[in-house]
Amino acid sequence: MYEDLALEMIKKVAIIGGGVIGGGWAARFLLNGLDVYVYDPDSNAEKTLLEVIDNARFALPMLYESQLPKEGKIKFCESIAEAVVGADWIQESVPERLKIKHLVYDEIQTSCLETAIIASSTSGFKPSELQENSKAPKQIIVCHPFNPVYLLPLIEVVGSNKTTASDITRAMEILTKLGFFPLHVRKEIDAHLADRFLEAVWREALWLIKDDIATTSEIDNAIRYGFGLRWAQMGLFETYRIAGGKAGMQHFLSQFGPCLQWPWTKLMDVPDLTDELVEKIASQSDIQSGDKSIRELERIRDKNLIAILRSLKQQNFAAGSLIAAHEKMISDDKTLKNKMLVSVERVIPVDWTDYNGHMNEGRYGQVFSDAADGFLSSVGVDSHYIASGHSYFTVENHIKYLDETLAGENIYVDTSVLLVEGKKLKLFHTMKRKADKVHLATCEQFLLHVNLNTRKSCEPVGDVAKKLQRIFK
Amino acid sequence: MYEDLALEMIKKVAIIGGGVIGGGWAARFLLNGLDVYVYDPDSNAEKTLLEVIDNARFALPMLYESQLPKEGKIKFCESIAEAVVGADWIQESVPERLKIKHLVYDEIQTSCLETAIIASSTSGFKPSELQENSKAPKQIIVCHPFNPVYLLPLIEVVGSNKTTASDITRAMEILTKLGFFPLHVRKEIDAHLADRFLEAVWREALWLIKDDIATTSEIDNAIRYGFGLRWAQMGLFETYRIAGGKAGMQHFLSQFGPCLQWPWTKLMDVPDLTDELVEKIASQSDIQSGDKSIRELERIRDKNLIAILRSLKQQNFAAGSLIAAHEKMISDDKTLKNKMLVSVERVIPVDWTDYNGHMNEGRYGQVFSDAADGFLSSVGVDSHYIASGHSYFTVENHIKYLDETLAGENIYVDTSVLLVEGKKLKLFHTMKRKADKVHLATCEQFLLHVNLNTRKSCEPVGDVAKKLQRIFK
Repeated sequence: MYEDLALEMIKKVAIIGGGVIGGGWAARFLLNGLDVYVYDPDSNAEKTLLEVIDNARFALPMLYESQLPKEGKIKFCESIAEAVVGADWIQESVPERLKIKHLVYDEIQTSCLETAIIASSTSGFKPSELQENSKAPKQIIVCHPFNPVYLLPLIEVVGSNKTTASDITRAMEILTKLGFFPLHVRKEIDAHLADRFLEAVWREALWLIKDDIATTSEIDNAIRYGFGLRWAQMGLFETYRIAGGKAGMQHFLSQFGPCLQWPWTKLMDVPDLTDELVEKIASQSDIQSGDKSIRELERIRDKNLIAILRSLKQQNFAAGSLIAAHEKMISDDKTLKNKMLVSVERVIPVDWTDYNGHMNEGRYGQVFSDAADGFLSSVGVDSHYIASGHSYFTVENHIKYLDETLAGENIYVDTSVLLVEGKKLKLFHTMKRKADKVHLATCEQFLLHVNLNTRKSCEPVGDVAKKLQRIFK
Repeated sequence: MYEDLALEMIKKVAIIGGGVIGGGWAARFLLNGLDVYVYDPDSNAEKTLLEVIDNARFALPMLYESQLPKEGKIKFCESIAEAVVGADWIQESVPERLKIKHLVYDEIQTSCLETAIIASSTSGFKPSELQENSKAPKQIIVCHPFNPVYLLPLIEVVGSNKTTASDITRAMEILTKLGFFPLHVRKEIDAHLADRFLEAVWREALWLIKDDIATTSEIDNAIRYGFGLRWAQMGLFETYRIAGGKAGMQHFLSQFGPCLQWPWTKLMDVPDLTDELVEKIASQSDIQSGDKSIRELERIRDKNLIAILRSLKQQNFAAGSLIAAHEKMISDDKTLKNKMLVSVERVIPVDWTDYNGHMNEGRYGQVFSDAADGFLSSVGVDSHYIASGHSYFTVENHIKYLDETLAGENIYVDTSVLLVEGKKLKLFHTMKRKADKVHLATCEQFLLHVNLNTRKSCEPVGDVAKKLQRIFK
């Protein structure tokens, strides 16, 4: 269905200039089912490009719960002409020198379709500069991507006064079909939009390093443990709208306006915060976010932050590894009394619910997986035991769902041992709501002890074997 | 265990100045088991502070797979003296006027312990400014948090030349125990570190709005669909190190150095990129990231981005809602042949694996939940049907795990119908690896049709009932 749509719009794609950026573009087209023709005079280009595409083949499909279209074909060409002839989209990612770009466009336009879009990945040049001396200037636009191009959605789309609205619309439609977020930069400006912010931060960072205020690592930490987390989901203005509280953007501006006169950055050329500018910002912010109250925006922000922080925790990186370390500090060791253990005690996070408004059935499985972990660590199957090459794998779960579980509810799991016999272990978990002790679900769980090197089952060893025998006698 | 440790370090906490920032601090202490004494002369402060704490009670525990310590007690005091007497940590978040802060410190220091840490939330003032005229200046340090304080980990810790190393170490240890990321800003500077970047971006943004280049919404999109996603996990320099490729940071600097002379921001006061500065940045970057190859850094970056993008997809926000929309464009409708359906076809993402190096058992449950969704949508249980107040809830799952499943593997699920009888529906799912058709798991799944308003079971209605009858006759 989609393939037809895409094919309706573009049948052939040319990538002029390989490298990391050209490779990222090639991957987006290929993995969305389109055939790609590449030209790059550098003999190493093919290798780099295929490496980037391999990264993309691993990463991009993981964003989707369904399958991407059947991958397109890739061909490395001997000339620009061979790559671009008959192509509907030509992506130029050659070095950032205007003279080279002009020569390349000249060669492209000798062979390409009149209807083809010639899109430049340039971060520095304006479309009117790219179009200089072109025989068909309107064909050339800027489509500026961000690395890694196969994962980051943003494409800045910029035209000149020679570009028509329908050229822009057509390019944006195609980019949307590819899964990108095309942002129309309505006026030509040096470095477009995003790179101006990157450049401002970069310049400030250079000062801080030069003046021995901070190191590269300290600067990165100042970003990724703080405002970086905010900016992954809301930008600058929506975040500050929340900071302004019920009094809104106007209040925020009046409160923080004076800082503009203070030496809070080395970059001191600042516009006057006139009433007119304040009113402009406030009304744009109303259009952007005005349909939601500050309380609603706070809730959205917090849920997004929880989800992002939890995703980083799962990857054990940056703010996520910090939370994992803190969790270790505050977690009690599970102690087993008789044959019964409280193996899990936790709150249900917002990212565990589904369209029915309650915890997804899969997450019950995760709770019972954690319950098994809680039980196992209590008998000595901990990180050391696992590092020594042994673990338990679950081979069967029988879950009965007894009541709905909602985000924010506190639950706990009682775990008892049904069987210990050689490599076999059977557990019975009961998940209960803390507030009223209502039984939410039960799970009969059958595990086998395994050797992690051979991935085959075997009997538990050492203290673990002894502890299990002691419990089940 | 942890509670003892924290109590060993601090027994009583004073919050001077409520509001959103003071409330965030109060929440961090309370939810980590400490008692908090608040003073704020504003009659509305208590209400705001309790609202912030309520937000935090919902959000902060969701970051953890285990329980936070038992919540501490909160008391609103009539005077600064009452709040600070005997307190070990005093957090000042009063308005950003130096005169007010000085008066407050004077009152605090009349009643507080000599050993107490007086930490200021100030974003603008340097510790030496805060300490002016104080009878015990070394007691006063900057601990600058970021909103929302109950979720964002970063605290900038700054001392003056009157502050001792052990004062800083002690403060940082306590902040770490609270789950924060304390970043020691080693030299006093206006606005510390992070706010200098925020201020630079803010100034650039004001220019763009004033000059009608972009709106607040366009600027936010330029951030959150692009570099914001990078900055949530790596910062500026580690990201650029990857961009520099195997040639490294030095190469990156030589490539992008010239842009410093170009008008890529309105903020033009730039340090010279001398050999000395280049060498300094490159060697700091080596210390920061040099233990990993560029390929490794790329893989880490990509996994983090996948996890973050998937977390936003689950929240249906920003880049995540874009992916969800793209997924709809490219997904085929499931069509049922005979009584058998391919209900799921997908790749296993990196965030689904656990410490055993394979897909966690809970995620099999999610695959089978998706399989049920695939089957149900094929018989008309779609978003319209659900919006009309009906759905199916799973009441029992019997999963057999037959083989290990790894991240990156393509799998599919064959689904057949075992029973349709009134409100009862039984499905049988077989999950297979695409490459070799090996059976990875099976699931016998029992569902009941429900009324989403009463949350009670009832018979399916309309076309859904007819379609199900047709399949199972």
